[in-house]
Amino acid sequence: MPLPVPVLPEAVDPAWLPPAAFRAIGGRRTLIRGSGPLVETVHGEVAEACRRFGGRVVRDATPDGAYDLVLHLDGEGLGGKGLGGEDLGDNGPDGADPDREGLGSEGFTFAREGGTTTVTATEGRGLLHGLFHVVRRGEAAFTGAWAREVHRPALALRMLDHWDNVAVHPVVGQVERGYAGGSLFWRDGGARRELGRVRAYGRLLAACGINAISVNNVNVHAAEARLLTERIGEVAEIAEALRPYGIRTHLSVSFAAPITLGGLPTADPLDGSVRDWWAAATRRVYEAIPDFGGYVVKADSEGQPGPFAYGRSHAEGANLLAAALEPYGGTVHWRAFVYDHRQDWRDRGTDRARAAYDHFTPLDGEFAAGAVLQVKHGPMDFQVREPVSPLLGAMPRTRLAVELQATQEYTGQQRHVCWLGPMWSEVLRFRPQDTEVGALARGGLVAVPNVGDDPFWTGHPLAQANLYTFGRLAWQPDADPVAVLDEWIGLSFPDASQALIDGLHTVLDGSWRTYEKYTAPLGVGFMVQPGHHYGPSVDGYEYSPWGTYHFADRDGVGVDRSAASGTGYAGQYGKPWAELYESPDSCPDELLLFFHHVPYGHMLKSGKTVIQHIYDTHFEGVEEVEEARAVWASLAGLVDPARHARVAERYEEQLRSAREWRDQVNSYFFRKSGVPDGRGRRVY
Amino acid sequence: MPLPVPVLPEAVDPAWLPPAAFRAIGGRRTLIRGSGPLVETVHGEVAEACRRFGGRVVRDATPDGAYDLVLHLDGEGLGGKGLGGEDLGDNGPDGADPDREGLGSEGFTFAREGGTTTVTATEGRGLLHGLFHVVRRGEAAFTGAWAREVHRPALALRMLDHWDNVAVHPVVGQVERGYAGGSLFWRDGGARRELGRVRAYGRLLAACGINAISVNNVNVHAAEARLLTERIGEVAEIAEALRPYGIRTHLSVSFAAPITLGGLPTADPLDGSVRDWWAAATRRVYEAIPDFGGYVVKADSEGQPGPFAYGRSHAEGANLLAAALEPYGGTVHWRAFVYDHRQDWRDRGTDRARAAYDHFTPLDGEFAAGAVLQVKHGPMDFQVREPVSPLLGAMPRTRLAVELQATQEYTGQQRHVCWLGPMWSEVLRFRPQDTEVGALARGGLVAVPNVGDDPFWTGHPLAQANLYTFGRLAWQPDADPVAVLDEWIGLSFPDASQALIDGLHTVLDGSWRTYEKYTAPLGVGFMVQPGHHYGPSVDGYEYSPWGTYHFADRDGVGVDRSAASGTGYAGQYGKPWAELYESPDSCPDELLLFFHHVPYGHMLKSGKTVIQHIYDTHFEGVEEVEEARAVWASLAGLVDPARHARVAERYEEQLRSAREWRDQVNSYFFRKSGVPDGRGRRVY
Repeated sequence: MPLPVPVLPEAVDPAWLPPAAFRAIGGRRTLIRGSGPLVETVHGEVAEACRRFGGRVVRDATPDGAYDLVLHLDGEGLGGKGLGGEDLGDNGPDGADPDREGLGSEGFTFAREGGTTTVTATEGRGLLHGLFHVVRRGEAAFTGAWAREVHRPALALRMLDHWDNVAVHPVVGQVERGYAGGSLFWRDGGARRELGRVRAYGRLLAACGINAISVNNVNVHAAEARLLTERIGEVAEIAEALRPYGIRTHLSVSFAAPITLGGLPTADPLDGSVRDWWAAATRRVYEAIPDFGGYVVKADSEGQPGPFAYGRSHAEGANLLAAALEPYGGTVHWRAFVYDHRQDWRDRGTDRARAAYDHFTPLDGEFAAGAVLQVKHGPMDFQVREPVSPLLGAMPRTRLAVELQATQEYTGQQRHVCWLGPMWSEVLRFRPQDTEVGALARGGLVAVPNVGDDPFWTGHPLAQANLYTFGRLAWQPDADPVAVLDEWIGLSFPDASQALIDGLHTVLDGSWRTYEKYTAPLGVGFMVQPGHHYGPSVDGYEYSPWGTYHFADRDGVGVDRSAASGTGYAGQYGKPWAELYESPDSCPDELLLFFHHVPYGHMLKSGKTVIQHIYDTHFEGVEEVEEARAVWASLAGLVDPARHARVAERYEEQLRSAREWRDQVNSYFFRKSGVPDGRGRRVY
Repeated sequence: MPLPVPVLPEAVDPAWLPPAAFRAIGGRRTLIRGSGPLVETVHGEVAEACRRFGGRVVRDATPDGAYDLVLHLDGEGLGGKGLGGEDLGDNGPDGADPDREGLGSEGFTFAREGGTTTVTATEGRGLLHGLFHVVRRGEAAFTGAWAREVHRPALALRMLDHWDNVAVHPVVGQVERGYAGGSLFWRDGGARRELGRVRAYGRLLAACGINAISVNNVNVHAAEARLLTERIGEVAEIAEALRPYGIRTHLSVSFAAPITLGGLPTADPLDGSVRDWWAAATRRVYEAIPDFGGYVVKADSEGQPGPFAYGRSHAEGANLLAAALEPYGGTVHWRAFVYDHRQDWRDRGTDRARAAYDHFTPLDGEFAAGAVLQVKHGPMDFQVREPVSPLLGAMPRTRLAVELQATQEYTGQQRHVCWLGPMWSEVLRFRPQDTEVGALARGGLVAVPNVGDDPFWTGHPLAQANLYTFGRLAWQPDADPVAVLDEWIGLSFPDASQALIDGLHTVLDGSWRTYEKYTAPLGVGFMVQPGHHYGPSVDGYEYSPWGTYHFADRDGVGVDRSAASGTGYAGQYGKPWAELYESPDSCPDELLLFFHHVPYGHMLKSGKTVIQHIYDTHFEGVEEVEEARAVWASLAGLVDPARHARVAERYEEQLRSAREWRDQVNSYFFRKSGVPDGRGRRVY
């Protein structure tokens, strides 16, 4: 039985799967061959498209010229090379994965010959990805001939970690760092059980390549902790809704669960009763969710419990959970976000940026096969500009996952347009030594999503582009992000005029650099309002215990992280980065204040002084927002009114906020440095 | 029937009315003459003392040598002068009060002759005050002879404005700016109905001279608004509990009540239906509470509704409510805390300090007799140091109340010892022209209290001294605050050794100046963490919309409020203050940065530069806290262990916080000024 496509309420935006995106398929004749649940999902998608656009779909006949599209499931495991197809290169370079020799569970081939377009896969998930590939190609998929292509995800795990709370947290609310309304899963302590919307969400995720989610916040409070035990049925319902789209479900758990839930006197990872407790709890999880993905753990971090309390290492902690998951093939994602959040600002020797490397590199090789160390892309916390975490190049014997943040905590909170594709691409293409980060992430690419129960899913309608781009980069980390952006525009606005396409492209591409210009300069980071992290406060974290300082005084600004005279953080990199970052002369401008404390008169490679750079970028950033707002205004009539109004309204706030950033940052540095703007503009 | 003294749970501290405070009375023979409810209160107090200490009490016999104490109610209205008594001077100088010629409703005489101490009053409230006067005197009241004294409160209204919410507010909680646990009156949306505790509270208030309270926050939210109407019964229960101690109950109301509660389309004060609505609502209030005191209103302030919405003046707004209260003799307290809380920090022409004067002086003479304009003592918001509000000398034809803040919002939040008696005394003795503020406050002296359901009432046990001092200064604004402090020590620690008395005196007297030393310097104010206002953040409000700036740059600091070159605020004062404040040469050191922007090298009258003063006071402030902590430690064994432990624990936090203040303020100004500490101490 074909699985019906989930029907969204009228008010909910279809995002990158509007019905018109299926027009090319829906108007044609499709043959589907194969069996299994995800083949029924594929069938349902094609059937719905045909219902709408007049085509037809047939199951399990013999392919002949009568079909425009053949979606073919072949259980034999076709190797790309063996079939003589051209491997078009969205494979990662990681030869260690046993799936690499064939299509694996998610790969597919695509070809067109003799008027028939053929997609072949060995498993249902691959066929579903192949279907969405055809959707993305649109009419082009049915035009001319296409030599055989083999598509396989570079990374086996492409995951979203929801920071959704079950109970509304008194400080952070229903969704921690959520800017798109409530949670899709939880409301006021209970499960929402709006599983149609959850299924539609899974469909969107599948269409951009995501294949796993974790359903609750890594900060596990009391109500959330019990999802692991007596509330596992609520998680199973979500898993069931997502399964038809090839999405596996994971759960954030508390390291202290044996105590808080199990009544044991300890959570010591080397204690036999603790191991037994986790084994039994995990067995019950798999009874409820046979394809359960595994656990996510934030331990010994920002107040969460962890193995340090028992004098155990984080490898011992992670391996405890890996052992419990091992019989079922599950994985534990163990976050490397461990640092001293009660630092003394007076102590310039301690450097939060060093913490993950210092904590974890001694453990390289000690993590079990089923344990993945999940590392934030930068050493701090999702700032608009950070260097790539040196940990990523320093743990060759550990499975690493890289964590990005699609929710715009520090990048405008979905009130500002800030398309993060270029930043993520820079991270994924960075080579700590001779391998790109996108290939080092053998444990997966993970993002904190930016979605909620908002009708546009992401609060700011244009922030949908971030979620889509994340999925596509997770599938192919070396993809050109601008091509992905255009792909998103093409899917989301299927009947767009060239003017609209150009307008959307203009306001999104470059928006990250615009945001960078009007906020914290030259990689120094933070300077945000404490707590909620929206809007400027240059000294907001300067005397705090959070380890995030800029050390501006009347003479200069920045953090000396050199090995020679600073915290030594620059020395955590391999060649050539350690040398490059070590000296202010070679350090890239955009990271200068992250690595060095320099005088305001220091000359950048751009030929400007630091202080003049601060003034110039802050004026430019605001001007660029003004221009983008005007471009958006010119698109009225080309996009639907509700979407246009929502974006227009957010541009007003973005502009107000950008001006506030400009004036506060410029005034702060003028008052400190006494150096006037070289162009005589107004600084307060 | 004598009214039984309220019995407190064992865990609740008796504050300044421990049983032993009644020993002198309780061991003697007392005659009570007169009738009425408050005479029964007096009788209950004496009877309880006698039960405990073996004395006896008789009603309505003829006075003769058989009695040590005669408490005599005489309805004839004895004039102090007419009876030849010596007027010992706790009268205010305000001859306009009709009660001044006699004892009034709250006055009493005190004398001792021939072995009998006699208290005489014309009303029960006066007799109760007289009883507590005898309690304060203790054994001395029964020793030797005392010439006749006449005691009358200088101010007819001595009031506490509780900022207690009925419903827990999501941001400010159950008690706005409350640091002593929950509310005594409300919990989680409902009335607590712990009326025994409320009665005990009223008893404490009466014993220090307070005679009115307002039971809910001036920020009136939805649940609180309905106290005026269908929930008036909950207020009546509180009023009933307080009435035996001569405390009248007032209510904070919303100016928008005719709309939000009455369903009218407007709250325009000149609209007939609005006037009718208030008249009817007020009639029902008095049906429930015949001695209801009146309304408190915060209008057009920080988001509260007000008459500006209708183009009406604040006099028109206040007079609307005064007219509704007039038939019953009630009063409306109309707060003068009106300013633009959405100021642009870039705009140096707008000065929040000017706002109350600018708004209200044009209305002098326009307020009805039943309207009181309630003015915060300083122009800003209860900072540790502010000049006295110029409004207090500028509205001769308006009844003014002066508002103080006993709850330590900006003065350490009852985690720091900060006895405010000297500050309040400075305010009350200030002469805007030729009359002291304490006499100008014809509409009353009001404080935001510092109490809650904490077992010590005030969180910090030593903060009880602030509440007691407020009451006594409200009765006699020109009293010596240090004498009041010693009186509080004597009552609260009735069997104290001299070492304990000296220790308590040492840690309290001077604590306000100590707090001033380690926080914002030289009257500049704020520099606190935004929102909760605890702990330092030098730039915390510098770029905010709240109008509270210090304008520090690399050359200097402070706000130019002179008439010649600044905001003109200094010109709002009469002689001699306008001239004195106008020039940095004549401006008192402690207010220099409030009135002037000066270079860091500016020489103070103390002979120190501004920057060196900042360093010195911040080091000294911390040293003084260290010394006070040591003094307190030395008192272990002299005070009960729970109280000692509570204070000792708070000293640890005070010291930590004081060091944080010292280091952040010193570092901030060192980084900005580049001037090293002249004594070479550690600045980070």
